[in-house]
Amino acid sequence: MGRLSCEVVAVGTELLLGQIVDTNSSWIGEQLALAGIDSYYQTKVGDNPTRIKKVLEQALNRSDVVIVCGGLGPTQDDLTRDVIAEVMGVDLVTDDDLVERISAIFGGRNRPMPSNNLRQAQVPRGAEVLSTMPGTAPGLKAVIQGKTLYAVPGVPWEMKQMVNEDILPDVRKQAGITAIIQSKTIRTWGESESGLAERLAGEIERLDREGGATIAFLASGIEGLKVRITVKGDSESEVASILDTEAAVIASILGDELIFSYDDQTLEEVILDLCRKQGLTLGLAESLTGGLIGSRITSIPGSSDVFNGSIVAYSGRSKKNILGVPEVPTVSKEAVEAMAEGACRVLNSDVSVAVTGEAGPNSLEEEVGRVWMATSVGGVVESSSVKWPFDRERIRQFTTITVLNALRLRLLRAP
Amino acid sequence: MGRLSCEVVAVGTELLLGQIVDTNSSWIGEQLALAGIDSYYQTKVGDNPTRIKKVLEQALNRSDVVIVCGGLGPTQDDLTRDVIAEVMGVDLVTDDDLVERISAIFGGRNRPMPSNNLRQAQVPRGAEVLSTMPGTAPGLKAVIQGKTLYAVPGVPWEMKQMVNEDILPDVRKQAGITAIIQSKTIRTWGESESGLAERLAGEIERLDREGGATIAFLASGIEGLKVRITVKGDSESEVASILDTEAAVIASILGDELIFSYDDQTLEEVILDLCRKQGLTLGLAESLTGGLIGSRITSIPGSSDVFNGSIVAYSGRSKKNILGVPEVPTVSKEAVEAMAEGACRVLNSDVSVAVTGEAGPNSLEEEVGRVWMATSVGGVVESSSVKWPFDRERIRQFTTITVLNALRLRLLRAP
Repeated sequence: MGRLSCEVVAVGTELLLGQIVDTNSSWIGEQLALAGIDSYYQTKVGDNPTRIKKVLEQALNRSDVVIVCGGLGPTQDDLTRDVIAEVMGVDLVTDDDLVERISAIFGGRNRPMPSNNLRQAQVPRGAEVLSTMPGTAPGLKAVIQGKTLYAVPGVPWEMKQMVNEDILPDVRKQAGITAIIQSKTIRTWGESESGLAERLAGEIERLDREGGATIAFLASGIEGLKVRITVKGDSESEVASILDTEAAVIASILGDELIFSYDDQTLEEVILDLCRKQGLTLGLAESLTGGLIGSRITSIPGSSDVFNGSIVAYSGRSKKNILGVPEVPTVSKEAVEAMAEGACRVLNSDVSVAVTGEAGPNSLEEEVGRVWMATSVGGVVESSSVKWPFDRERIRQFTTITVLNALRLRLLRAP
Repeated sequence: MGRLSCEVVAVGTELLLGQIVDTNSSWIGEQLALAGIDSYYQTKVGDNPTRIKKVLEQALNRSDVVIVCGGLGPTQDDLTRDVIAEVMGVDLVTDDDLVERISAIFGGRNRPMPSNNLRQAQVPRGAEVLSTMPGTAPGLKAVIQGKTLYAVPGVPWEMKQMVNEDILPDVRKQAGITAIIQSKTIRTWGESESGLAERLAGEIERLDREGGATIAFLASGIEGLKVRITVKGDSESEVASILDTEAAVIASILGDELIFSYDDQTLEEVILDLCRKQGLTLGLAESLTGGLIGSRITSIPGSSDVFNGSIVAYSGRSKKNILGVPEVPTVSKEAVEAMAEGACRVLNSDVSVAVTGEAGPNSLEEEVGRVWMATSVGGVVESSSVKWPFDRERIRQFTTITVLNALRLRLLRAP
């Protein structure tokens, strides 16, 4: 048997009309790739039974496994159940177990169950109900002429739980994939994608030759540039060990100047952790970012034990009155260093970052894209300047990640 | 002839792997709907010539018009041109005009043209080059067995310009749509989707009966709830007049308390405009939003002539020291009103907004979701409280739009 292929069908007229962007299929595609399952097509189709049927039949014809997403809700527009029954050539039967589970969910919420929710307890005869059921919409599995069709609701968190817990393990079993696949993401800032590829060229060549792991790059804007290592193996412990070894090799090549974190940890979390460990509080002085840096820091739960606040001094007068910036050009080394000092003083903070610059589109004093950034650690202020070749929003975002990374490096080196 | 149908095919392995979410198809779908063109399917396919060919042939079989998006770049992975030639049964020929245009673009940028950019000058024999060409990738039009196939690059701004300027007018002509279609979006805050539907029920019924316009709702989170009016008619002036009349009817029902703007104008822009007209400067005092309100205000170019800054006072000490908040609970009427007064005073601002609350997930002093908001206009502070049933990020976002709308209402009523 060759490699198993799986395709995704997303059902919903609102997807075709562009009212909702279909991020479900993208997410499932990523999980399939990671699980080692080939995926060649993804289709969106509206809430029309004839067209849904055509699309499902074609998908079952050209792929081994089909995941259909959406159209499992309680309304008359939710047609996926009915169409699957038609494709299978069977009728819908009420599943008593499901009636109970759905009633219990509504009972648990202390409100009467709308009668059309019972539509969700109907199952094509011969189809299985997936055991994972986080909401009121059951997922389904049907085997049709040797191919497998899964149906999941369009609600992202319900869909993701079913795919992770029921569908992916099942598909990997069908694919005869006993191999364990794991990946680790190394998150970097300060080097371009081609620069990273150049630094890692020797290691990538070695892996191409000897196997063991594969490496991919992914540019993610304000989230940094990601290096993803993927390892296949026969046992959990073997894979984890190869993955750790490979991550260590790459870490030794790139160094902690470029690498700020692993997997889902953000740069903001890293900085909060570094401050917390060293018992330091953080203050900001923002001009062109307008509060963006503070907004990102405070998006992390628990940031309040480190973060004291931010002085968003947008006007020259605020810079002078609140932060004590002297009579110097707004976008200058002197201004940004005074801002960093002012942030520590005014916000009673041990460390700070400060930014001032010209985000455009029209320049007031300085050329558009010119930004000064400063950090203050242990009472010592360091500053640097950059000229971004970007638009307003990217100038603000790249400034944010760059200055936060500068602070990270100083905290890392702090005694 | 029945109604014309058009489908979209997006080409790119990165779309299937979930590395990029396919927002192009969603955007095209929305434009087609608005232009009165039916759209039943959207397909994603990887960079594989056999599978691209199958998908294009099927699309041409079941729809009247096909727009294929992506795969027109200069690299060997860009296969759309080659596959279209194959579907047409012709060879690729070099278009001398295109060679000149592409060379001119590179000449204009003062750098040598990579030779593989000449791949982009190759056109399937018999296909037309679209006249709109904002980048180096030309768009194509081919008539295949009575059906029309358009090819556009995957770069969003290049794609959008070609679709708007060349493809939509052309498709509408083919569809025999001489009717003009225009829409207007009314942006609201302060009422749920079902609440809006209830308020507008009488008008929607009247329109269902008498025609003239259609109305649709679209929930857009921090961007508010949108009411879209769409009108078809025979002439620009007739349509514009019906649209204006209908917008006025809906505006009179909903009132300017709920309606904050029209079409693409954001709430932040409205507030900056109101302040600018009245010669007022704006300051903020933010706690749970951590800089989010300032970040959104300053994302608007030119905000610096109104916006003085924001005091992000996250710690109790910052609230006290900088803003002069007395010894009261952090999440309270007294605290938020002192913050609003402090923002005006410290930032030398005429008007201000202030927010303090518990964004969770763990509560410190108050129940999670409890938020106090205040506005100061003309030296008079008004405040109110709400308990959001949301997660951390939505609590921060709903707080932002709610307090900005409260400020808008006060500026609107100001003498």
